[in-house]
Amino acid sequence: NDLKRSRHLVSRFAGWALVLAPLAVATGVLGALFLQTLKCVTLWRFHHGWILWGLPVAGVAVALAYRFVTGLFQQRGRTGAPAPFKAFGDGAPLVMVPMAFGAATISHLFGASVGREGTALQMAGGLADGLARLCRMDARRRKLIILSGVSAGFGAVFGTPVAGTLFGLEVTALGEMGYGALLPCAFTALVADQTCRVTSAYIGFERLDGHMSFQPFYSGHWAFTGPDPWLMAKVGVAGLAFGVVSRLYAGGIRQARALSARLCAVQWLRPALGGVATLALVWLCGSDDFLGLGIVAPQPHGASVVNFFGQHHYAWAWAWKLLFTLVALGCGFRGGEVTPMFFIGAGLGNALAPWLGAPTPLLAAAGFAAVFAGAANTPLTCTVMAAEIFGSANLAYYAMACIIAYAVSGHDGLYGFQRVMTPKY
Amino acid sequence: NDLKRSRHLVSRFAGWALVLAPLAVATGVLGALFLQTLKCVTLWRFHHGWILWGLPVAGVAVALAYRFVTGLFQQRGRTGAPAPFKAFGDGAPLVMVPMAFGAATISHLFGASVGREGTALQMAGGLADGLARLCRMDARRRKLIILSGVSAGFGAVFGTPVAGTLFGLEVTALGEMGYGALLPCAFTALVADQTCRVTSAYIGFERLDGHMSFQPFYSGHWAFTGPDPWLMAKVGVAGLAFGVVSRLYAGGIRQARALSARLCAVQWLRPALGGVATLALVWLCGSDDFLGLGIVAPQPHGASVVNFFGQHHYAWAWAWKLLFTLVALGCGFRGGEVTPMFFIGAGLGNALAPWLGAPTPLLAAAGFAAVFAGAANTPLTCTVMAAEIFGSANLAYYAMACIIAYAVSGHDGLYGFQRVMTPKY
Repeated sequence: NDLKRSRHLVSRFAGWALVLAPLAVATGVLGALFLQTLKCVTLWRFHHGWILWGLPVAGVAVALAYRFVTGLFQQRGRTGAPAPFKAFGDGAPLVMVPMAFGAATISHLFGASVGREGTALQMAGGLADGLARLCRMDARRRKLIILSGVSAGFGAVFGTPVAGTLFGLEVTALGEMGYGALLPCAFTALVADQTCRVTSAYIGFERLDGHMSFQPFYSGHWAFTGPDPWLMAKVGVAGLAFGVVSRLYAGGIRQARALSARLCAVQWLRPALGGVATLALVWLCGSDDFLGLGIVAPQPHGASVVNFFGQHHYAWAWAWKLLFTLVALGCGFRGGEVTPMFFIGAGLGNALAPWLGAPTPLLAAAGFAAVFAGAANTPLTCTVMAAEIFGSANLAYYAMACIIAYAVSGHDGLYGFQRVMTPKY
Repeated sequence: NDLKRSRHLVSRFAGWALVLAPLAVATGVLGALFLQTLKCVTLWRFHHGWILWGLPVAGVAVALAYRFVTGLFQQRGRTGAPAPFKAFGDGAPLVMVPMAFGAATISHLFGASVGREGTALQMAGGLADGLARLCRMDARRRKLIILSGVSAGFGAVFGTPVAGTLFGLEVTALGEMGYGALLPCAFTALVADQTCRVTSAYIGFERLDGHMSFQPFYSGHWAFTGPDPWLMAKVGVAGLAFGVVSRLYAGGIRQARALSARLCAVQWLRPALGGVATLALVWLCGSDDFLGLGIVAPQPHGASVVNFFGQHHYAWAWAWKLLFTLVALGCGFRGGEVTPMFFIGAGLGNALAPWLGAPTPLLAAAGFAAVFAGAANTPLTCTVMAAEIFGSANLAYYAMACIIAYAVSGHDGLYGFQRVMTPKY
């Protein structure tokens, strides 16, 4: 009986693995190609700054293409939920995969301030949904495979398989994490991450984020003595600031969408508005550091995620990036919401460091993780992500920043589909 | 209005902090004293091996003392739930704090194979419950403060504040984690850990576990190249073994309790049975490595948690420790259940390493975390604990081992109070 049951379980797991493995491999390969494409177009833009003038036209062209190819352009739900979750009701077609890839590439080529993970999740969700329909799955299995796709996309794009696993579990609800999809999410996140790394090595892609690691400064020493209470209090204060800014970000995107809808009734024309506004902002701040991903800057000491971990201080870079991103996302440019948050969080940490008298890389890393934790309501994902990217010597600080940011960021996060299972207060 | 609400929130948080800070400080100080006491009695036992002959008498004396001082000796519930959770119904009195301390010390002085975290949780839970009654809290607040106490006890005893935070949230239910107590648990775990470190430094206590860190071997290199798929598959196979053994452990404790009850109807006489059985086991295996905590061994190359991370291999140490621990816990010796699992898991990893052709410290660390994850149904706590103790370079391997062990360990864990919120299959 016990043997029979375990044989049944093994065959069920094997069946799932057969479905999930191709999904994870495809997500990983697509992720690597996507990252390499983004890197190429970003470096190309750095040397051909004039292309920014094309931003309004490019945005309108993408919007029209979306309108033409699919009827999916209408943004349903409270905020721009990533397609995997719209897919529950809408049936995101497989054609969304190349569409999302191309649209995000064009956004980054022309310099819109958007991210990349939204696109990766859309691609993974589209693949998962296609697979679910191919296998004629029921609603419960469909949900499981789409969550696995989300984990795979996150794990592959950020190179953090454990955080990717948790993201698929944590993002669906606020204040509660169910373990129903734990094993499939872990499997796809690991396989997708691994595939993405192998493909990256094959096509010669190297992560720019690799340069912001700062383990050598802190590792080892603090791991044994434990966190310093005074520094922990400073990180707690910074965590409050991260939480407030994550609230500004998530609420700001909603308001920017409403505003652009009020200013321009024709949806496909809104990116033109956003493009012109972005051009005006570049003229206002006199810098093009806030366009695109912002992982590296065109100039050696420009504001960028990597430079925020260095010795220079950038007092208002985070605020400019916030403004640029609200304009781009509010006017309907395609791309993710997370990478700009990395910029805003690390930049705010960098700006707070001299005020609080705390080490700059520590606060930059805490902000990198905590603004995301607050806006997406995923404190554990972000704590683990910080451990995977920055090492675990300062894990308690990252956890503190993420938990406080989560606690003060309110109940209206970035993802409108989150049900509030346990209110924060 | 918003200002008023945030002022209300701040005053509520401040009120909580005023209650939780003394709890966390007391737990941290008690934890440090407890760890130092255990270290002293363990080292004393190493040099005075004859004291083992007193084990049956000591066990009976402790049992009679429990019977005499409190009416709480009856083990209610399915398994020996730690007192903080019994406290919901029983009202664990404050007198449990010194009782638990003394009983565990006697267990370790005479060489019973038990752990330490159960005692720390009982002490923290007793303190929390006393505080809750002092402040006349309602049931919801009582639950919150007791969970905070659990987090504080775990964080202090193992020196892992982030894992301690998660433990308080994750242990209450199976297959789901609620975030209602996230902020209080994080606060008390951090403060208790910090207090425990400061007190330890003051009384001159040094953790023996510090010697099992092995960051220098792996850190850095794999963090960039990502996990090796072939090695990941081996860790997955080991994870299955860890899960099966965690099932044996949790189920074995239940069965050992039932068996000792059948063999000896008088409850306070059962430790005599266990003491005699332990003496027989020592004679059978011809080693006293499996008595007490097992963090270090009496002889330089004896089986111990620290040595499992070294170059020697111990094929059956894990099985002997399992037997010793089932005898000790089944016959009612006082102490924790977790440290023996560290021994069993690390020992099994050590034994599997040459068979699987995987690095010994990697499998030892994975087993250290994963057997606990399977038996307590706390995969995320254990993954984060592994990151805090062993560094995050191999985090994906630890996560894999913990998640697989959790997936195959079944629904009857170590803690009978866990409600099954999401079944595993």
